[in-house]
Amino acid sequence: MKILKFISFAIKFDLIFLRTGLFIFIFNLIPNLYLLKHLKCFVLKLSGINLTINSAFILAPLIVDLSKNISIGKGVFINKYAHFDGNEKIIIGNNCQIGPFCKFYTTNHDNKKLEYLPILLGNNIWLGSNCIILPGVKIKDNVKIAAGSIVNKNITHGKLWGGVPAKCIKE
Amino acid sequence: MKILKFISFAIKFDLIFLRTGLFIFIFNLIPNLYLLKHLKCFVLKLSGINLTINSAFILAPLIVDLSKNISIGKGVFINKYAHFDGNEKIIIGNNCQIGPFCKFYTTNHDNKKLEYLPILLGNNIWLGSNCIILPGVKIKDNVKIAAGSIVNKNITHGKLWGGVPAKCIKE
Amino acid sequence: MKILKFISFAIKFDLIFLRTGLFIFIFNLIPNLYLLKHLKCFVLKLSGINLTINSAFILAPLIVDLSKNISIGKGVFINKYAHFDGNEKIIIGNNCQIGPFCKFYTTNHDNKKLEYLPILLGNNIWLGSNCIILPGVKIKDNVKIAAGSIVNKNITHGKLWGGVPAKCIKE
Repeated sequence: MKILKFISFAIKFDLIFLRTGLFIFIFNLIPNLYLLKHLKCFVLKLSGINLTINSAFILAPLIVDLSKNISIGKGVFINKYAHFDGNEKIIIGNNCQIGPFCKFYTTNHDNKKLEYLPILLGNNIWLGSNCIILPGVKIKDNVKIAAGSIVNKNITHGKLWGGVPAKCIKE
Repeated sequence: MKILKFISFAIKFDLIFLRTGLFIFIFNLIPNLYLLKHLKCFVLKLSGINLTINSAFILAPLIVDLSKNISIGKGVFINKYAHFDGNEKIIIGNNCQIGPFCKFYTTNHDNKKLEYLPILLGNNIWLGSNCIILPGVKIKDNVKIAAGSIVNKNITHGKLWGGVPAKCIKE
Repeated sequence: MKILKFISFAIKFDLIFLRTGLFIFIFNLIPNLYLLKHLKCFVLKLSGINLTINSAFILAPLIVDLSKNISIGKGVFINKYAHFDGNEKIIIGNNCQIGPFCKFYTTNHDNKKLEYLPILLGNNIWLGSNCIILPGVKIKDNVKIAAGSIVNKNITHGKLWGGVPAKCIKE
């Protein structure tokens, strides 16, 4: 009975991530050719990400835990090894440039209780390499964020932010 | 003679990492299904990691240089792209939650001399994404470490640590 | 006509990265054996990286966007998941030790205008894990850089640097 209970739980659990896992796996097999840009977006659309097929140029490998909550605007470029957990909404505005190894996490662990908060990026945002955007963060349009920054609160003013945690460097 | 010497050295060197390399390679081919949780732990056990087969849920890809010095407790969850060098003991206590891209390094380079120091994590520790735990660090039970922190000394008090290097944020 | 224009642009764009993409892909399929050290360097040479075949021990996966601007000295060791963008010259001196997940970026985005600046590392430099070297940075010989540092200006003195951004810790 214990085994049946485990299998039943496991199947329910795995089904949540199956569509994302399958299509992100296929996406990561497609070479990073600009010529295949539309095919790559199409496969991401099949995984559940909300984007238009001719909208973005996204490089493999891309790491996604759950696709259905993710929206990507037009003219977006996402570099290698970007990681989206996607447990809550992650909305990337138009013409954003996401550097390699950038990480978007919507999950907080608080005393064993999980909390999910959305991430909202405006338009024309540039994220340097290896930035981490934490749960609940909103970033206004036209902001540049320096490489390696950890953004733990909303960015509502300024032009350049950076550091751990991120602070305004240039107004 | 020089070639023979090189081959002899290379074979000795490669044999040290062969078991780890082979089974971690196989581990990383297994899909991240909860249903395959036990199989995944079993393959990690074959690689030389000290863990019980029904103890942990560990996501691929996992990066391990040397498995035999690593011990993982019960109820542990390890997210994608965690990196353990394993040149000295790395002990992860029970019910720890390790975020994606967390890195555990036991090797110091000091004026071309290598120094190896163990890492010891207690129970119920939560590591945010992209944390680096440096050689020799011990972390007490029930600590939460913020994303992107670099832990370079023992954590013996407090509830929340974070920053570069990590400092106590909440007692 | 719009489609023809896209295809023509895409082919020109992809041809720039084709040689790098192909040979780095092959490189990353070769197991990390010391015995295959020369073969691995040979494949990197074919990708366009400037190095001598018996000079370096470089672990897969290696992430390279454009190989032709990269030079690697003798006795260099590069650990897993190092990332070189290679849009401008990246010169790594002799006997450097590059930690895992170290990142070398030569591209600045400034108000939609791209700017490329070279990176120059001297000899006997040791980079800890997950360091980011930003565009235009020169680092003098015999410097050690702590894990997780972000180097945004030239390092012309001192022995140990670290932090975000990197500061001199030991003269």
